[in-house]
Amino acid sequence: MYKNTISMNFTEKLHNVVNKNQSLLCVGLDIAVERIPAHIRGRANPALEFARNIVEATADLVCAYKLNFAFYEAMGAGGWETLRQVLEAIPEDVVTIGDAKRGDIGNTSEMYARAIFEDLGFDAATAAPFMGRDSVQPFLDRKEKCTFFLTLTSNPGSRDFLYLDVDGKPFYAKVAETIMSWNEYGNCGFVVGATHPEELAGIRATVGDSSILVPGIGAQGGSVEASVRAGCNERGEGAIFNVSRGVIYASDGEDFAAAARNRALEIRDEINKHRRG
Amino acid sequence: MYKNTISMNFTEKLHNVVNKNQSLLCVGLDIAVERIPAHIRGRANPALEFARNIVEATADLVCAYKLNFAFYEAMGAGGWETLRQVLEAIPEDVVTIGDAKRGDIGNTSEMYARAIFEDLGFDAATAAPFMGRDSVQPFLDRKEKCTFFLTLTSNPGSRDFLYLDVDGKPFYAKVAETIMSWNEYGNCGFVVGATHPEELAGIRATVGDSSILVPGIGAQGGSVEASVRAGCNERGEGAIFNVSRGVIYASDGEDFAAAARNRALEIRDEINKHRRG
Repeated sequence: MYKNTISMNFTEKLHNVVNKNQSLLCVGLDIAVERIPAHIRGRANPALEFARNIVEATADLVCAYKLNFAFYEAMGAGGWETLRQVLEAIPEDVVTIGDAKRGDIGNTSEMYARAIFEDLGFDAATAAPFMGRDSVQPFLDRKEKCTFFLTLTSNPGSRDFLYLDVDGKPFYAKVAETIMSWNEYGNCGFVVGATHPEELAGIRATVGDSSILVPGIGAQGGSVEASVRAGCNERGEGAIFNVSRGVIYASDGEDFAAAARNRALEIRDEINKHRRG
Repeated sequence: MYKNTISMNFTEKLHNVVNKNQSLLCVGLDIAVERIPAHIRGRANPALEFARNIVEATADLVCAYKLNFAFYEAMGAGGWETLRQVLEAIPEDVVTIGDAKRGDIGNTSEMYARAIFEDLGFDAATAAPFMGRDSVQPFLDRKEKCTFFLTLTSNPGSRDFLYLDVDGKPFYAKVAETIMSWNEYGNCGFVVGATHPEELAGIRATVGDSSILVPGIGAQGGSVEASVRAGCNERGEGAIFNVSRGVIYASDGEDFAAAARNRALEIRDEINKHRRG
């Protein structure tokens, strides 16, 4: 049993931590070994030590932590265990998002869902919806969890396919509508990049009160004000704004944890400034 | 340095092994621990022992082995190392495909490509193209490798998005055309399920001599004859037909390796019967 598998569903848990920490900020614990401050690099597990310090310094300022699996896989054989240990360092009341962007079919999808939700105990995951409903059914079946489906990403190449015209509307809009038809347990979320605030507003209108994970403020250049106004629901909630490098690498010196805290505080407060409700 | 990183590009290596083994069969080493024959389960690393036996029994009958990462990740902390050891057991002249179906943006994509091609040393990978060109640029940059892009999957849910009408043609056709515009190094391949032989023929017409990875014959019910006629190029090559469970679990007794060999031989020969050229 891991600390994060508490008997509360995702929506309640998110709502509680958003209120408690007055925060819609998610910090991405995307740890690249070469960016860890020099004074920690000699330790037994520098990535874990770094992550623990960041979590300790920021846990009262965030609603969620997101762990991108690619960074842990790049650590080699010990990466999976490090990911697990970082997860254990996160306080029980903060939401955890397993950012694996998985998409596969049939029994493979079941294996991914089991690994992320039961074995590791994440509260939420990211997944690719493009292979259709049966490819993500095991994710949908986890009623108490949330799956954030890639809908419109923040990169320039999102224009290659996601804006293609389908019956007079862009493909990403069709994706959002279709996912809403899978949402019988209210456990579907959406990933929409902050670089597309107008489209984010349109998707918010389509998905009602569903959770939207918004990467791309900070390093990728998305505006905080525009994203918050477009992404939140009428009560000023429902969106989670992820920042990774901008927070965790705020300083590469011995003050890295304090610098991360200061940066998280700034971003949290800037987000709150633009929330309605 | 791993054995599979020999200085020959993917296309040459595939052509050579297809000729040598007279085979378009790829065996998927999708090892589910609970399906390993009972008499092996007590060994130190049952999955590795099982895979080594399967490889030894079939390596002269296949052109490729495909390793679906989900199965190795489901093994927990030791899974990554097992994947690496299975890879090392594959003879140097047989193509290896890392079936990770990754898709992410920016530096994350670079990390995935590095892990699959350099760290693990696969000859080829699968990847999701839907986030657009920049999301897969690190894969395209590996000129000597091949990336098989998900184009039309074999599952029923492939109808949810991949058949949507875009300017009078289905979305998957637009995906194939667009990927061809990324193919300056001739290192783009396509994943097209055997359950769609007519569509496979259409995609073959679009992609010229590119390699197509065809899953779904066997367990998923795709016809071998229809898939081979639709999928191969005019010289009776260019397609790789993957079978996983149908071969590796041909028997759950002590004869599992011999049974896998017999089944691989049957499928190889059935594929060859329908090849032109």
